Amino acid sequence: MDFFDVVSTQRAIRRFLPDPVPDALVARVLDAATRAPSARGAEPWAFVVVRDAGLRAEIGRLYLTAWETAGQFTEATDADRDVKAAPHYGRMMRGADALARGLGTVPVHVVCGLDHARLGPIADGAGGLRSPGAAYSSILPAVQNLLLAARAVGLGTTLTTLHRAFEPALRELLGLPDTIEPVVLVPLGFPRDRFGATRRRPLSDVVHLDRWGTRYARLDAPEGDS
Amino acid sequence: MDFFDVVSTQRAIRRFLPDPVPDALVARVLDAATRAPSARGAEPWAFVVVRDAGLRAEIGRLYLTAWETAGQFTEATDADRDVKAAPHYGRMMRGADALARGLGTVPVHVVCGLDHARLGPIADGAGGLRSPGAAYSSILPAVQNLLLAARAVGLGTTLTTLHRAFEPALRELLGLPDTIEPVVLVPLGFPRDRFGATRRRPLSDVVHLDRWGTRYARLDAPEGDS
Repeated sequence: MDFFDVVSTQRAIRRFLPDPVPDALVARVLDAATRAPSARGAEPWAFVVVRDAGLRAEIGRLYLTAWETAGQFTEATDADRDVKAAPHYGRMMRGADALARGLGTVPVHVVCGLDHARLGPIADGAGGLRSPGAAYSSILPAVQNLLLAARAVGLGTTLTTLHRAFEPALRELLGLPDTIEPVVLVPLGFPRDRFGATRRRPLSDVVHLDRWGTRYARLDAPEGDS
Repeated sequence: MDFFDVVSTQRAIRRFLPDPVPDALVARVLDAATRAPSARGAEPWAFVVVRDAGLRAEIGRLYLTAWETAGQFTEATDADRDVKAAPHYGRMMRGADALARGLGTVPVHVVCGLDHARLGPIADGAGGLRSPGAAYSSILPAVQNLLLAARAVGLGTTLTTLHRAFEPALRELLGLPDTIEPVVLVPLGFPRDRFGATRRRPLSDVVHLDRWGTRYARLDAPEGDS
């Protein structure tokens, strides 16, 4: 697939078909993940591919409990007041609810871990991070490569972080060493939802020229090259 | 370009040609950045495109000072002892040194910011982050899209975070609001270095099946689909 077609149609897929995912596609997607940059070229990533049905079901149960707890918190504190009127919000939340109820049967879970033992001076040696930006810059670009590569081979994904709410149980289930921080959990499977173009804020809302608040006018007329 | 060709040949470019970068390419690359996912679909990103020669020169001076200070620290504490024998290290460090000396004249700097005011409950409202993983998951995938899209249109980039060492001065130069965290600085220009395939740890070193330490043997023989 053309690169820009992949980027412009990669979107969160939260409903999946039960069809099994071939190992060859998992390999292709993980190989793409490892092409990402990392601080010091240390490649401080580790991936646990969960295919075992019992493990996935247990992760799904833990995730659903965390989802319901988070939903109660969001409702009680009106935590999403800033976005809940946005056009995407209702659809997104229905999808996220469907994911929480169906995660246990998504064919593959990929737990994307950051290995603090490979961060050198970026980690503080006591489980913390001296430079969180540099640390997460050494795992989240790999995750994005994974999401894009999945889209390129026809597999759906969505970037989730809710497992942090049940991290001790997840660590126990997967036998994660202390140095591995499970940053993202990616459900992976053939999509029941459709891929398709995403709607985004216009560039004029998010791009500034030279100094904050200065409009980059020529971005809006891209045929006028500098 | 084909998606997998882009992913497999995207690599850090640290030496640049002086040729100007057309606005249309900047727009294309930033549009790709905004296609990334974000927590709550809030798109909490903001980009400052620095084209002004005086600003770039000043950022370059600050960066070089930070680079030299960091180099002294690394040497004094042998902070890279875990990676300095790796085959990539010498070449990478020579490139990073060339970047530090040449950054001021790279045609475009893109400062990629995370807007804490758009993070809802993920930010703590006092400049900190309640869920750093979720927060950085809402800007670093966009940065990776930017790096890949640049490669797709023939522009070089590298993901840098050293500006955090002179963040107050950078904020002042660019007039960044308090809520904007400048997470990554991406130099952008036509490459003097070459694109090309990257060398990475083999998948068997970084992928586990179901539980940590269990080899995912079928990844090594991807023709044997499940």
